[in-house]
Amino acid sequence: MNHLETCLSPDLLHLHALEGKIVVVVDILRATSCMVSGLATGVDKIVPVTSFEQCIPYMEQGFLSAGERGGAKLEGCHMGNSPFEYMSDAAKGRSVVMTTTNGTKAIHLSKGAYRIVAGAFLNLPALAHALGQSGRDVVICCAGWQGRFSAEDTLFAGALAIALEGTHSTDCDATEAAKVLYRQAQDNLEAALRQTAHAKRLGRLGVEKDMGFCATIGMFNIIPVLHGEELLASTVI
Amino acid sequence: MNHLETCLSPDLLHLHALEGKIVVVVDILRATSCMVSGLATGVDKIVPVTSFEQCIPYMEQGFLSAGERGGAKLEGCHMGNSPFEYMSDAAKGRSVVMTTTNGTKAIHLSKGAYRIVAGAFLNLPALAHALGQSGRDVVICCAGWQGRFSAEDTLFAGALAIALEGTHSTDCDATEAAKVLYRQAQDNLEAALRQTAHAKRLGRLGVEKDMGFCATIGMFNIIPVLHGEELLASTVI
Repeated sequence: MNHLETCLSPDLLHLHALEGKIVVVVDILRATSCMVSGLATGVDKIVPVTSFEQCIPYMEQGFLSAGERGGAKLEGCHMGNSPFEYMSDAAKGRSVVMTTTNGTKAIHLSKGAYRIVAGAFLNLPALAHALGQSGRDVVICCAGWQGRFSAEDTLFAGALAIALEGTHSTDCDATEAAKVLYRQAQDNLEAALRQTAHAKRLGRLGVEKDMGFCATIGMFNIIPVLHGEELLASTVI
Repeated sequence: MNHLETCLSPDLLHLHALEGKIVVVVDILRATSCMVSGLATGVDKIVPVTSFEQCIPYMEQGFLSAGERGGAKLEGCHMGNSPFEYMSDAAKGRSVVMTTTNGTKAIHLSKGAYRIVAGAFLNLPALAHALGQSGRDVVICCAGWQGRFSAEDTLFAGALAIALEGTHSTDCDATEAAKVLYRQAQDNLEAALRQTAHAKRLGRLGVEKDMGFCATIGMFNIIPVLHGEELLASTVI
């Protein structure tokens, strides 16, 4: 058996040894849901960066820019942080440079891992299959909200941990708690996501329809895998 | 309504504004259970410090010393970290200087709050009553394990949050998750504590009997409240 750990906030990632392991970055509402949706439906590649300033040289090379701060679209960017923007005709065949409050930061903090991939309910079965085949230890890194615990990312961690029970053991309280929380929510995942603090924030910003979409399990079968600076669609890790 | 937040690890405490608030430090296995047990049964006062070196001047003044690292008794100390040691005849009427892996660190990180108190299942009803009467916002600080999430402290946070539903509202995912976890575990709290990673660590150290004791709700009706450097028994906050 390989080993599985769950890190409930990027601010706790320093407690986890990442070397040789696969880190699954999770930001269900909505960065990693966007990455999966975009790369599954025609976006060529996604470069995650941590500031708008870092987007500018990519924009000058013809990248679309996608930016979010506090849940809202970042001024000066072509797109915000909705999966529907990433799946639009305007994004097909394009390269995207992306900066978000939590998700892109979590990716950058995960550097040093054997591999960094993006997880969402949208690609859960494909991700679980590839992780199961990988023969590697896994750390699930919940992006959270400005360093705080977030329920939606933890629910995903629980779902993924349950899917990996055949290949990955755990002795980590965070993983066990996430499994309990997911089992309690799984019969109505969309309702559970709508009750989270971040869903309430997003509700005020008028992006209600993203919620149901981000709660859809297995709509896509690709995994965003970081190669150098670029997230590319893959079916293996 | 006052406000309630839950901090799942001392390493996340920097995300919470503490000024004007009451911080409830929780280290169920076993530091705050020891504080409650000792002060309820005759220990005069407890001074929490973060290192053994800081214990020495107190020992020279006649304090008993209590020390724990990695679950085991710290060499050179009179006592380890079992509630039964704190309730022994040898501890009655004495002052204790105490250093533990997680609990005393969480207390020191909480400085700046209006008041710092110790919570445990052992004093849950008295603590909930006093917090309900306080008219203050509350931050529950789970001591965790070396910065990581720990299930037993989170279960207590859930129990306390449920007890405060009449006086303290929350919009914090961590509190809501803790409530779900407690509701799922409450019918057999001792079994839930025994399944935690830290209980397994302690089981290997032969302190099995502490588990059932620390899972007992409401055995004592005092609250350890920090005044200056000293934790003293109180019934109000």
